[in-house]
Parts: sequence; structure tokens; C-alpha cells
Amino acid sequence: MSVVYERVALIGLGLIAGSMAHAMRAHGLAGHVAGYARSSETRETARRIHLCDSIHDSAAEAVKDADLVVLAVPVRAMAEVAEAIAPYLKPGATVTDVGSVKRSVIEAVGPHIPEGVHFIPGHPLAGTEHSGPLSGFASLFQNRWWLLTPTEGTDPAALARLQDLIRGMGANTEDMEAGHHDLVLAVTSHVPHLIAYTMVGVADHLRRVTESEVIKYSAAGFRDFTRIAASDPTMWRDVFLENTDATLDILGRFTEELFVLQRAIRMGDGQHLHDYFTRTRAIRRGIIEAGQDTDAADFGRSAGTKQADGKG
Amino acid sequence: MSVVYERVALIGLGLIAGSMAHAMRAHGLAGHVAGYARSSETRETARRIHLCDSIHDSAAEAVKDADLVVLAVPVRAMAEVAEAIAPYLKPGATVTDVGSVKRSVIEAVGPHIPEGVHFIPGHPLAGTEHSGPLSGFASLFQNRWWLLTPTEGTDPAALARLQDLIRGMGANTEDMEAGHHDLVLAVTSHVPHLIAYTMVGVADHLRRVTESEVIKYSAAGFRDFTRIAASDPTMWRDVFLENTDATLDILGRFTEELFVLQRAIRMGDGQHLHDYFTRTRAIRRGIIEAGQDTDAADFGRSAGTKQADGKG
Repeated sequence: MSVVYERVALIGLGLIAGSMAHAMRAHGLAGHVAGYARSSETRETARRIHLCDSIHDSAAEAVKDADLVVLAVPVRAMAEVAEAIAPYLKPGATVTDVGSVKRSVIEAVGPHIPEGVHFIPGHPLAGTEHSGPLSGFASLFQNRWWLLTPTEGTDPAALARLQDLIRGMGANTEDMEAGHHDLVLAVTSHVPHLIAYTMVGVADHLRRVTESEVIKYSAAGFRDFTRIAASDPTMWRDVFLENTDATLDILGRFTEELFVLQRAIRMGDGQHLHDYFTRTRAIRRGIIEAGQDTDAADFGRSAGTKQADGKG
Repeated sequence: MSVVYERVALIGLGLIAGSMAHAMRAHGLAGHVAGYARSSETRETARRIHLCDSIHDSAAEAVKDADLVVLAVPVRAMAEVAEAIAPYLKPGATVTDVGSVKRSVIEAVGPHIPEGVHFIPGHPLAGTEHSGPLSGFASLFQNRWWLLTPTEGTDPAALARLQDLIRGMGANTEDMEAGHHDLVLAVTSHVPHLIAYTMVGVADHLRRVTESEVIKYSAAGFRDFTRIAASDPTMWRDVFLENTDATLDILGRFTEELFVLQRAIRMGDGQHLHDYFTRTRAIRRGIIEAGQDTDAADFGRSAGTKQADGKG
């Protein structure tokens, strides 16, 4: 693989940016990777493990001369970062982000992007429940989807170059309209995460079942809900605050469906339950046929630890 | 490992009974394993793959001379089976079951058990989304919990022997009061499963997001919900119809919690969301500290396929 960008700046040094640093280094995709994080502790850690080629004490410094700038901070922190770096962006550079919500990021970041700089929002569908500068690993994006939400005005050459980088890190990429992205992700990720958080909260409140029992017998289904519910609280707070409409829409549908099933349980309507449970099998078959499942069920996470690298 | 029971009869030849047959054979725990299934097709398959030492055309025949009889049929089919085999049970034999609900199974089966036969209800917390006579494998119970719900009157020697068999198959075992079992499982398994079924149903109904998108981007969280939602419909219908009270209790709490979070999203209450998401991290830490999680998140299933045997 050859160098795609001479200089890349990573703003935020958590799981995603850290994994990008590892992946770009492993595949020789960037001439120089500059990094910045708001917390001095994170910057120190990043320096100590040599996460990037250079770590800077301000975002403005980090983006200087960068051909690609990656905004990898919580969704609600994007606007401030964009404003801070705007004057220092190199003409012709590309700015992308890795936020889980796209419409609100576009609204927050777009106005700050100067003429002559390309803004191509993105979202890698990859993660683990770990966060921070030590949590990244090179294979996080292997065989994952990395969605981009360009607009009609997006420069085709800039888009193609970003796609090259993404594919170079092992991911598949596809374009999608931002609003549609937010709805698709509400269904496939955001609401499932909120439900998992809720289920763990219920168990936590239930005094008649001890915490040790919940923990001990968690392998019967509950365990994977707790994995999700250990995800970064700030990131997920921002997702729900910024993808409000789609989340509430899908949540409303979810609650309706749940009430219909709850009623069937209360009324003893076995036929309804059986029919419902039979229908949902079809989607599962579709996922297997599409090659989008592996033995390791992992909520889109690469099994949660660096040791899982080999699994993709 | 030495023989624990000279003759074991498996009534029902699905995933659990099939895995027991494999595990007992692998560890030399039974002198002879007799099997019966209601469907002639299942019996034929079991004969073809030599799942048991003998396959019988009636449950009555299968339990003849058996020292241990395992009822491994859907919860609502237990009563009929118990009634059918009752006259043929050997004095001093033990009858157990593997149903996911215990109170209603005890009510259904208990009255049919003749004097001099020991009834010790049980529930292995193990499974995959696959079902049928070809789905079993010897390591399904490895390092899983197998709960037993004996009563004060249960014969200690009969209980100890059954525990020996369970441990011989690689599982851990613990005693629990039947009603408490049903509540614990409602939290750790039944409601999580219902929620997963519901989420898949929502995706299925959503016309603005195509099925191919749901499938393609399922790794972002949704995928493991579909794994659960591919579980055996009859088994799960019976679970909800027979563990109604505990399920409705936990569902009610779940809905309340969900509404509180939904309101926080609608009102933009980021502090509430952040606090909630931070608290749920603690339970996750407890599970990891208790050694009850592995890299492979799998909803208590052994990664769903026989190839996963090595994983336990």
C-alpha cells in the first residue's frame, strides 16, 4: 500500500483515532500523522506509546499543513473544534469526521469550513466498549463498513482519495445521504444501544435479584447488554442528543411492538408470539447469507480487546 | 470420568438433549443412552447419526429401566410427556427436565411423578440459536451454569448423583428456589430475548430503511439482536406463556426506565443520560471481575455453531 496523504491530523485521540493511527502506520498510508487531544493526560499517554509521529498542544498546530484532518471527538464537541482549526486549514485539504450522527455534525461543522477546503463527513461502523488512547488497534476497521455522506458539491477527487485511505485500512465504504444515515443508524445501532443501557439499568434497580446473581447468570442473554452498556457515556449522550428525531421515531415504533407482544403474553396468545418469533428468523437468515455475521457475536465490536485482532 | 447412570433416557432430541448425548458419550457418563422424539423425522435423523445408543418409537419404551429420565421438550409439552411415561418409570429413578421456566414445569410434571421416583427440576443456561437433532455438540455445557430447583423433600443422594452428571458434562451447578429462578431468568434471559425479538420486528416493518441496509449495517449493534431472534419459536413462546408474571413484572420496569430515558432525550437532558450511562458501567465491570465474560459476546450461546466447540 502506498501513502495516500502526506500529512494526516487526528483531532481527538480515543478508540477511533487511535485505531486509525495504528492502521495507517501498519499499512503505510500516511507520511506523517499528527495528533491532538484536549486532555493533557491523553496527550502524554499518546506521546509515551508513540501513537502518532507528533503530538501537539493545540488543534491549530496539529492541523497545520495537514492534507487530511480527522475530527474524532464526541459529536457535541465538533463545532468548537471546527471553529478552532478553521483558520489554520491548508487550502485543498480534506476535513472528515467519525461521528455516529451525520446531520447535526454537518450543521455544526459545515459553516466553519473555509472555501477551498473539502468537508466529507464520515462514520466508521466499528468500535469496542473501550475508550481512550490505549484502546485502539490496527484491525478495528477490517471488513467493517465506513459510511461517507458527501453532497452533490463534493469534489470527486477528494472523495476518491478519502475512500482510498478507508479501503487501505481494511474497511468497506459506501456513500449515503446524511438524513438517511441517521435513520439507518437509529435502527441498527442507536436504539439497540439505548435498549441495552435500559435493560442493565433495570437489573441494577431490582433488589429482589442480587447483583451477584445478575452477574453470575449473565451468560443467559444479559451479558451482551452489559457490554454495550459499558460504552463511552459522553459519546452516547451526544448521539442521542443529536439524533433525537430518528431515535424517538424508532423508539416509538419499538414501544408499540413491545406493547403488542406484552399484551399477547398477558392474554396468553401463543399463536401471535409464535408467528412473530417465526417471522424474525428470516432477517437473521438474510444476515448470514449476506456474510455479515461471524461466530463471534460482538455488537459490531472487534470482540472488545486487542487480543481479538486476528478476528477482523 | 466413570459412569454416573447405567441407563439414561432423553425425551425430546433437540439442541439440549442432543448435546447431552454427545457430552455423556464424550465423558463416559452413561452406560446406555435411550432416546425418543415425537417426530418420526427427528427419530430417523437421530438413528442415522447414531445420536443415542437406542432410539425408541414411544416415550414409554424409552424410559423403561432408565435410571435417569430427562424431559427435554418445550415447556408446554412437559405435562403430556410426564403423564405418558409415568406408569413406566423405574422405582428409584430420577426424572429431571431442562425447561427455561421452573414453577410451571413443577406444577405440570410434579403430579404425574409416582411415589418412589425422584423429580429434580433443572435448567442448563446454555444454548445456541440452532435447534433440532443435528444442532447438539459435546461442549455446549462447558463452564455454563446448570441450575437445579430441588425442594426440601428432595433425596440428597439422588440430587448428588444428578450434580455429578452435570459436572461431568463440564457445567457448574447450583440450587435455587423455583420462583426465584423464574425471576432471575426473567431479568437475565427472558426479557432480553423478548426485547431482541421486538427490535428485529421493528426493523422488519420499517419501509424507509430497506432490509438490505438493515442486514448490511447490522454489525453496528443490531446483529446480535437478530441472533437471539432466530431462536426456536416454540420454545420461546412457551417460556413467555409460562413465566408470565415475572416477565410482565420485568417488562413493566423496563418500559418505565425506557420512558425516563426517552423523556431525557426529548428534553435534551444530557446530564441524566450521562449519569445513567456511567452507572451501567459498574455492572459490566462486575461481570468481568467475576470471570463471567469472554471475548466472544454470544448471548450465552457457544458462538452458535459446532465449530465453536473449542471455545466452551
